[in-house]
Amino acid sequence: MTMDRVLIGLDIGGTNVKIGLCAPDHTLLAYERIPTTAQDGPPAVVRRTVDAVRALLTSVGATMNDVTGCGVGAPGPIDHARGRIVEAPNLDGWVDVPLADLFADALSCRTILENDANVAAYGEFVAGAAARVRNMVMLTLGTGIGGGVIADGRLIRGAFGSGGEIGHLIVEPDGRPCPCGQRGCLERYASANAIAQIAAERLEAGRTSTLATTIATGKSVTSEDVARAAAADDPLALEVWQQAARYLALATVNLHRLLNPEQVVFAGGVIAAGPLLFDAIQSHFDALNWDLTPDKPVIAPAQLGEDAGLIGAAALAHDDSHC
Amino acid sequence: MTMDRVLIGLDIGGTNVKIGLCAPDHTLLAYERIPTTAQDGPPAVVRRTVDAVRALLTSVGATMNDVTGCGVGAPGPIDHARGRIVEAPNLDGWVDVPLADLFADALSCRTILENDANVAAYGEFVAGAAARVRNMVMLTLGTGIGGGVIADGRLIRGAFGSGGEIGHLIVEPDGRPCPCGQRGCLERYASANAIAQIAAERLEAGRTSTLATTIATGKSVTSEDVARAAAADDPLALEVWQQAARYLALATVNLHRLLNPEQVVFAGGVIAAGPLLFDAIQSHFDALNWDLTPDKPVIAPAQLGEDAGLIGAAALAHDDSHC
Repeated sequence: MTMDRVLIGLDIGGTNVKIGLCAPDHTLLAYERIPTTAQDGPPAVVRRTVDAVRALLTSVGATMNDVTGCGVGAPGPIDHARGRIVEAPNLDGWVDVPLADLFADALSCRTILENDANVAAYGEFVAGAAARVRNMVMLTLGTGIGGGVIADGRLIRGAFGSGGEIGHLIVEPDGRPCPCGQRGCLERYASANAIAQIAAERLEAGRTSTLATTIATGKSVTSEDVARAAAADDPLALEVWQQAARYLALATVNLHRLLNPEQVVFAGGVIAAGPLLFDAIQSHFDALNWDLTPDKPVIAPAQLGEDAGLIGAAALAHDDSHC
Repeated sequence: MTMDRVLIGLDIGGTNVKIGLCAPDHTLLAYERIPTTAQDGPPAVVRRTVDAVRALLTSVGATMNDVTGCGVGAPGPIDHARGRIVEAPNLDGWVDVPLADLFADALSCRTILENDANVAAYGEFVAGAAARVRNMVMLTLGTGIGGGVIADGRLIRGAFGSGGEIGHLIVEPDGRPCPCGQRGCLERYASANAIAQIAAERLEAGRTSTLATTIATGKSVTSEDVARAAAADDPLALEVWQQAARYLALATVNLHRLLNPEQVVFAGGVIAAGPLLFDAIQSHFDALNWDLTPDKPVIAPAQLGEDAGLIGAAALAHDDSHC
């Protein structure tokens, strides 16, 4: 088997490096993951990743000659234009790492570097939940809230490369303090961590809840615990859950006022709650949204799961004329 | 005098139609304004406008043969793709008016129709306050708050054509009700009307202020009155003014998180207050903005005044490949 064109998509996280080979139509041809072990330093991580890429190419009967580009997603902030990781706390403090050049040299192949939230959004845009639209926004509800914005088919990076930071939209003036230095950021109310933390705070403040049994066993409350208790109509859990959904809906209204996307896609661990999350966001959105025009975005779960980042990275390497 | 290429820019408002002839480098070659008299209906308004365009062309020694395009700004909502005014309460209830086609037929010239806030933003983008940047946002503080967003050199319209509605970003959950159906919209705190109205409400509630003398003479308080009293350290006026500036700053932080523009430009009557406005917005922005990255937008006044709309409309007719 020979192939004309293969794109490499890499998604570098704190725990694993995900490696994918994609066709230009975004089909995932082969996939592997290896441990990141970021503390070994960037050159070692790049070397092991490139070894795995070569083995993966061999496994599908391809060589580096078939490769037309490489896209790398990594935790930010990223300097996309210069292809550098500015600082990545998740990667054992990698600071000012020229990751695009390291991969380009090791692979002898054009390489672009992009923020991990942006590549995931781009993946869902080209091949997932939003594959037939031109305007979409993605929110990834995990430890924090990552964001990606596609307007008229193009990823919005902003002038300084830190656009799309939906998790740090201020949704409550003078609200909960955020380590970023702002107050009332969306991710202080609706990330997995925030949902768990707000529930724990209210338990500590003496509220009764079925969640108290989790605490009693010496474990921390998780957002999954809150979702489970909310599904069972626990009043405290419902209150925390509905608050999270309402702030997500408020952010969605604001995104719609500004960008008017056809789709707003939610990803990340919290979406495992399914209709408990999506029905709540939709009903708060309908209550908060204006009456002036009937248009509204489809609010939908992400479809590519863990693969979104590497598919998006490969697609950006294909589409991005700036690299 | 003959000219190779002339662009027509029209800015249709409730009171006047502004008519401009522009060179491709955005120089305004000739300008006129005529009363709109919208109640005569779209065909009559188009006929009078076209007569004025022809006279203006003659005055600069040009003819319709020199014209390469016509851009029209009008109050929204606008269906840009179909070139129609959906509904314009300012224009005596014009509903579903195919204004682009009416002008294209009367002028025998390619015509695009765009929302008035968008053409004004585009004018400042190509020839005014933001002429050397690629990413900018404009807020026009008038009766309401109009908005326009340029990302990576392109006007953001959104999938449904009602993007850029910055005046209806929700900045205060459960805040002041807005006729749009939402609560806590930016324009309920920081438009000229809102500034005047909030001051009047607090006077009625019994607050003392130098503004009471205005009321005593039987006049309504205006935003200019509030600015003047705030400049003279009237406590009530200062409180209302600072609240407006703080919500504008909060919206600016959110716009920066999402779009990362080099410039955020403020236009409209309220900017006549000068440093009283801009210093307040800047200091609230600095207090509200995150610490994670040092980038921030230049917060600047618009430079083109009344001409922004027609210069922007002409420029869009030149740049827009979709028309």
